[in-house]
This record gives sequence, structure tokens and C-alpha cells, in this order.
Amino acid sequence: MLLHKIEEVRKHVKNWKKQGLSIGLVPTMGALHAGHLSLIKKAVEKCDKVVVSVFVNPIQFCPGEDLDKYPRTLEADNKLCEEANADIVFAPSPSEMYGEGQMHTNDFLTYVIPPFFYTNKLCGKSRVGHFDGVCTVVNKLFNIVQPDFAFFGQKDAQQLIIIKKMVKDLNIPIEIIPCPIVRENSGLALSSRNKYLSEEDKTYALALSKILNNIKSCYKKGITDVNALKETAYAFLNEHHELEYLEFMNENDLEAVTTATDNTRVFIACKVGGVRLIDNLLLGE
Amino acid sequence: MLLHKIEEVRKHVKNWKKQGLSIGLVPTMGALHAGHLSLIKKAVEKCDKVVVSVFVNPIQFCPGEDLDKYPRTLEADNKLCEEANADIVFAPSPSEMYGEGQMHTNDFLTYVIPPFFYTNKLCGKSRVGHFDGVCTVVNKLFNIVQPDFAFFGQKDAQQLIIIKKMVKDLNIPIEIIPCPIVRENSGLALSSRNKYLSEEDKTYALALSKILNNIKSCYKKGITDVNALKETAYAFLNEHHELEYLEFMNENDLEAVTTATDNTRVFIACKVGGVRLIDNLLLGE
Repeated sequence: MLLHKIEEVRKHVKNWKKQGLSIGLVPTMGALHAGHLSLIKKAVEKCDKVVVSVFVNPIQFCPGEDLDKYPRTLEADNKLCEEANADIVFAPSPSEMYGEGQMHTNDFLTYVIPPFFYTNKLCGKSRVGHFDGVCTVVNKLFNIVQPDFAFFGQKDAQQLIIIKKMVKDLNIPIEIIPCPIVRENSGLALSSRNKYLSEEDKTYALALSKILNNIKSCYKKGITDVNALKETAYAFLNEHHELEYLEFMNENDLEAVTTATDNTRVFIACKVGGVRLIDNLLLGE
Repeated sequence: MLLHKIEEVRKHVKNWKKQGLSIGLVPTMGALHAGHLSLIKKAVEKCDKVVVSVFVNPIQFCPGEDLDKYPRTLEADNKLCEEANADIVFAPSPSEMYGEGQMHTNDFLTYVIPPFFYTNKLCGKSRVGHFDGVCTVVNKLFNIVQPDFAFFGQKDAQQLIIIKKMVKDLNIPIEIIPCPIVRENSGLALSSRNKYLSEEDKTYALALSKILNNIKSCYKKGITDVNALKETAYAFLNEHHELEYLEFMNENDLEAVTTATDNTRVFIACKVGGVRLIDNLLLGE
């Protein structure tokens, strides 16, 4: 069932709660791919009722980013959700979420701001304010849907860690379920932004997962010095790659490490053909 | 029943929800007086179950403020709450709410930040970060208690307006119930900080309510020019008063006005004997 209004969703949620049914939320920006579908599948298995939100959240895009050209495919998304047995697809308009006028700015909107220690690194460094927008909209969706469980992909690992931190810090009564990255056979992590890639760029994009897998192999062979592990990346990069970061951090608190352990997550961001791609991997997995 | 642990409160809340009972929350910093009791009374009338939180929230005090000497009278508070038929008094420790270590700072804690337009004025001007701390702790209490209704006094009118704005902006499924200011017969608005006042200072403190009432009389007689109304205040002030602000603002959005209407709220803050006091009044009431 496709709903656009907050009050309509609340009505169903209230009814479900009265019946004692458990609720799962899968927050997305649409342009659904097999990665999202794995989240929805997990939610359907675990919960009595499942809400998939489809909302390209303007306040998490920075100036100059791809807000306007971000793929919007609501009809197809809705069909996929129905086939996956989601109960509600919630696709609000920006004004339904934020009202009219200047509501997007910090001057006139209450924001949920994750801690600086978690946002001044990795994607947060180039995407200033991005995670403020993410936490604010996720908090809103949590309050609208009041789920028992919310499902997030490991693909956006920094986002997942920040959301978990928000839930802990604000005592939000929701359990966050992390879901593993879904990849093409080639190893390329699925992303809605892959649609921007030319066929040629797609082959260059494989560098990200290759770099991560190679680092993991080296780690399994006993190399734990992060600088040494970082150096193994350059063999996979050429003039088609614009590396933004390759970082080793503690899985739980995003503290940078100099010696890799099983709890170390390796994060990479790299532009290929002008498209910004990210990937990551836990060394202990 | 006096509880100190979040998980204990959650257990009762879960049980109440299962029974379909409505829950009211009265957030306080303790040192309860008749003003708080009027909130608790209203909550007990309106809700099946009532939680009073007693927590001197460190993150809403600014450097140099009275965090350490703020009155703490938990035993008496608990007795008053029991007599008023509150079901739970929730009195967590700072570490129960924020964990150990550096958790209070923006570097390591997720904050809920109300909009700048609402906080860069009145008490927010001198108490930088105060309302960030208020919104963050209230959000946490909302998530712990999950009330249907939450009760706030009009005494802290800016706080009430900011909380209402937070609830709207973040789609929090809670109804905010404003409760009128309770005053001594003298007109002095009740406040936990009145305990700091000497008997002599208490008479000087009456200037606040006198100024407000006089402004209201003038308004009722037809004076609507805010500058003219402000000038009537000086007759009540002497060397014992350190006026911080006297402001006229729209009741709903804290927009400063130059012409008073029934929707105009008049806000005053003034130090008497080193004690910072606030009061306010709606002209249309």
C-alpha cells in the first residue's frame, strides 16, 4: 500500500500496535536495488508488519551534490516492495516532512546532531552536515512509524554506526538490525548511484572491492600495520580513480587505528568517472 | 515508587502499554514546589499512569551557572509525588543518563538542537547551549517513558515553545500540555531558585510580576506600542534589580513584535540579589 501522508501511516501503526503486532522499518531513498530488497526480506521475516520509506531527503544533501538528479523511481520501487510483501510504502513529499518555506535550515528546524567525533571523518569530512540531515530524518521516521526494529545496510557503515550511536544516546526504544552489503558477481557493492556509471567506469569501479579484499587477504596473512596495508591499495588505482579516503577504524566507535585487528573496519571512498562510490569491510568477518 | 534505572522504568512502561493504559510524563529538576504539583495533579487527572522525572540535567547548565548548588531534595520530592498519586518517580544519576567519561560534550554525545531562530533570544542569549541540553534530555525522557502526554509549565515559556517546536519538527507522537504559572499571593512566580532569595530580595523580586501586570493593564487600556509599554517598566526597577531582558514576542513562533496583540507574550528576566529570575505573561489571557 502506497501512502504519502504522515497521518495515514500513523493510523495504520496505531492499529497494528493495538493488535500487539511487531513493526519493522526499512528507511530508503528509493531507486531500490537488490541491496534494499535484502533489507526488506529480512524485515518481512522478522516482523509482523513492514514499512518501507522512500524519501530523497533534501537536508542530507550538501550544496553541489546530486539532490536534483538522484534517481527517483517510485512506481518501480512500490512494485518491488509489494512483491517483497512489505505492508506500507511511505513516500512523503519534502513539504509533508518539513513544511513549506525555509524549514530546511537550522534556523527554523529542530535538528538531531550526531557527535562530532563520529562525523568529522570519512564521508562526513567532505559531506559537511550530511549526517545531521540523516539523523534528523531517521529520527522523524522513527517517530512516525514507531517500529520495533529498523534495518540499515552495512554499505553505509559510517551511517549505521552513527544511527546506532543516536539510538543509544537518545534512548530510542528501537533495535537496529545491520544487514550485509549485497554485491554484483564482479564484487561491486550495489548502490543507487551505480546507475550513473558508464560500462567502462563500472570496470574501474571494481578497484574498491578489490582493494578491500586484498587488504583482508594481507591481514589474514599476518600484516597488521595499517600503513603497510594502505600501501597495497595503490596497485589497483590509476588515472580513472580519484581516491577520497582509505581508512582503518574501530568498528564500534570509529576511532582510527594504526594496528589492524578483527574489529577493524576498512572504509574506502573513491570517485570513478565523476561518481562518488563507497565500500567497506570488516577485517574479522 | 522511586526508580533510578532506565531499564526499570521501561519494564513498567511496557507493562502499562500492554494494558492499553495512557501515560503522562512530568519532567522536573526536582526541588518540587506548588508549581510542579499543579503539573502532577493535571497529569494524574488526565492519565492512567504518571511518571515524574527528577533529574538535574548537567548538560543544560552553562559554565558558571548553579549546577552544583542547584537544590536537590529527592526524599521530599518523592514524598510529594507519592501524596499526589504519581506512579513512578524516576531519578536517574547523570551517569545513568549519559554514561561515564566525556559523554556530556558535543564531541561524543548525540544532541537534539532546537532552531537558532528560537534560541538566539531571551534566555538563550545569556544561556548559550541551554536549550540544546533541554531538548536533548527531554527527547531522552520521551524515549524512555514513551508518554501519551507530557506536562510543562508556562513559567519557562521559551522552553515550552521550543519543546512544542521540537515535537512538531521531529514528529514526536506526544501531546504537550502547557500548565499555567503558579504564583505566591504576592504575585511572585514559584521557582526552585526562589530558595536562593533573602526575605528582602523577595520583596524586590515582586517587580517582575508587577511590571508584567502593569503592562497588561496598559495594553487593556489600548496602548499597543511596544516601546511605550516597555517604558512603563522602569518605575518598578531600582538599584536592586539587574534587568536582563523585557521582550514582546509572538506566542507561537517567538518573533519579536513592535505592536502588541492578544497573541503577544511578554517575557522578563531580572537578577535580584544575584539570583536570576524569569516571568512572563500572555497579553490576551
